[in-house]
Amino acid sequence: MAPAFEAHQSQGPPPQVGEQVAASQNNLHFSNHESKVTVVGSGNWGSVAAKLIASNTLRLTSFHDEVRMWVFEEILPSGEKLTDVINSTNENVKYLPGIKLGKNVVADPDLENAGITKDANMLVFVTPHQFMEGICKKLVGKIKGDVEAISLIKGMEVKMEGPCMISTLISQQLGISCCVLMGANIANEIAVEKFSEATVGYRENRESAEKWVQLFSTPYFLVTAVQDVEGVELCGTLKNVVALAAGFVDGLEMGNNTKAAIMRIGLREMKAFSKLLFSSVKDTTFFESCGVADLITTCLGGRNRKVAEAFAKNGGKRSFDELEAEMLQGQKLQGVSTAREVYEVLSHHGWLELFPLFATVHEICIGRLPPSAIVEHSERKPRLSLVDGSI
Amino acid sequence: MAPAFEAHQSQGPPPQVGEQVAASQNNLHFSNHESKVTVVGSGNWGSVAAKLIASNTLRLTSFHDEVRMWVFEEILPSGEKLTDVINSTNENVKYLPGIKLGKNVVADPDLENAGITKDANMLVFVTPHQFMEGICKKLVGKIKGDVEAISLIKGMEVKMEGPCMISTLISQQLGISCCVLMGANIANEIAVEKFSEATVGYRENRESAEKWVQLFSTPYFLVTAVQDVEGVELCGTLKNVVALAAGFVDGLEMGNNTKAAIMRIGLREMKAFSKLLFSSVKDTTFFESCGVADLITTCLGGRNRKVAEAFAKNGGKRSFDELEAEMLQGQKLQGVSTAREVYEVLSHHGWLELFPLFATVHEICIGRLPPSAIVEHSERKPRLSLVDGSI
Repeated sequence: MAPAFEAHQSQGPPPQVGEQVAASQNNLHFSNHESKVTVVGSGNWGSVAAKLIASNTLRLTSFHDEVRMWVFEEILPSGEKLTDVINSTNENVKYLPGIKLGKNVVADPDLENAGITKDANMLVFVTPHQFMEGICKKLVGKIKGDVEAISLIKGMEVKMEGPCMISTLISQQLGISCCVLMGANIANEIAVEKFSEATVGYRENRESAEKWVQLFSTPYFLVTAVQDVEGVELCGTLKNVVALAAGFVDGLEMGNNTKAAIMRIGLREMKAFSKLLFSSVKDTTFFESCGVADLITTCLGGRNRKVAEAFAKNGGKRSFDELEAEMLQGQKLQGVSTAREVYEVLSHHGWLELFPLFATVHEICIGRLPPSAIVEHSERKPRLSLVDGSI
Repeated sequence: MAPAFEAHQSQGPPPQVGEQVAASQNNLHFSNHESKVTVVGSGNWGSVAAKLIASNTLRLTSFHDEVRMWVFEEILPSGEKLTDVINSTNENVKYLPGIKLGKNVVADPDLENAGITKDANMLVFVTPHQFMEGICKKLVGKIKGDVEAISLIKGMEVKMEGPCMISTLISQQLGISCCVLMGANIANEIAVEKFSEATVGYRENRESAEKWVQLFSTPYFLVTAVQDVEGVELCGTLKNVVALAAGFVDGLEMGNNTKAAIMRIGLREMKAFSKLLFSSVKDTTFFESCGVADLITTCLGGRNRKVAEAFAKNGGKRSFDELEAEMLQGQKLQGVSTAREVYEVLSHHGWLELFPLFATVHEICIGRLPPSAIVEHSERKPRLSLVDGSI
């Protein structure tokens, strides 16, 4: 059956980010029906998200122009506060230097007193995943009743009772619904307005998903929504494990065939793992930007791939901790901790044999297997899949 | 539901290719029940295919040891015939130098008198696609009744009545069933036994598919079969069009996000195009080696990508013909002709609007649009897919 297509309509003129005239014209749009957006987080990706959003709140009448951005306050080498500099220059000089965020982005350090959330009815969470539990605890009881949330955070918490997705953590702790946005999104490329895509995952509320799509979409950033919050979120989390595998292959100089095969096996394990954990996960989600495209970006560039390549080049003799410290200027690798968390889940359920690539990545990371095991072990694919049995 | 898995069993000791002792021991296995294999073609990929097959016919009792390989006879600069040199050195010195094919590979130039096919009951077709119609005409009536075929050929013939897949051409002209084998298969990497994968597509006969899987599988070359001959074959054909798009993005230095997005949009169009042409095509096929993995390999390396990159770097001012002649030493780009053929199909059915990436690639190739159009035009995705409407 031929699918029903429609030509994609223009989304209007490009947003006039940072132009005073546009901002003041749009201030006239303020009414009580407008949604107020707060971005919780202001790192590299958080700043780019604020820029995307701020261009749209100026342009669209259904959003209040001002975008509040929570900034973990820091004193810069100049002695100035980071928030003051952001607010006077419209630039996150520490995490996204050289890019204007838009005059309607207001940096605010006040998480404690919930100054950042008291008026907001749309919350965008984009912090390192290990901070989320603490942030939620501070926000409990201090947000409006009709708030909707979206998480741009990659990673999951593994607890005794099983893995907990960040969107679930937010929903449970704050009692609000939470979508996710994932995709092939290297922040610095989107900051300079290079074309890319993203996927919004939603649970039930399609109207809410459409609002998030509106808030993030620009002519150079195409957003699609799918009803599969866990599938989208697990893509964003698990791809970092596959990126480590791809990095090992690069370090061992095994060529493009092998790398493509390992990426494909990784995608298969991402899909199988997600579907075993959540029966609602859809195959089609893996064809979206959050799936195959993000996997490609992460396995071509990305710091997980890069450090894993160095790890394999050194024959596993220098630890990830050591290489991280040397190569990443204080940033931590998400993939290594995710690989450990995934391993714990697999081990707990007796699934290690079913996921040779995921299991092997962790065992290489902790030095139990040599980097070359990534190919030898990933080959042990389920025999049934030789003819038509693949998941 | 948890899928039924089984650990992958070892396939026995690695084949003893080219060792006299193994060959003579195995000659004892000859009986009338053994399948005799002929490889029709002896280029780079054909020679590697012969090597893979020859290692298995020695090892497996259900196949006759000898693998006959049709060689288009050439006189080498030394004055010797190519077939003589292959047969005396076990090496295709022209198209796969430095690699031993196995002593049980016999080069044979006799297509005219069907010397190569008279005893064969398994035919492997691996020639440039434009030669297939002529080859089939020569073989009509000169093959055994119980012959099975497999095509490793990428490309399709566009005729007045619509596109004709190569496997269909073989089936129709020779009155035999024909499987296909596609995947992330850079011949030179497989020749040196680097790990890779492939997909066999079959129509109905699962037993025949299992035989082809056996014939090609080695510990470093994993083959999976799926019941979707058109899906597998179209993947192998259409990925070259996407590789041109990826090459344009590389030439314009647009970054990994954009490249991943374009590859994803390309994969989506591959899937949509295949399903519109053949309703039997399965979504899962695109997760196999022939789908996402081959797409990745082809868009990372590969000559289509490379020449398209040069084309974009020159702002489209030097034609593909000119760049091909300069960069490919006489080889032709499959992608450019496939893009034209796909465009004809789209145009004929009134589908141009539905496939902005495929259409734009052809229009860039013929100089109607600048290379930068690849991003501007591919963005025009069907509006319905913004929320859940993707195919």
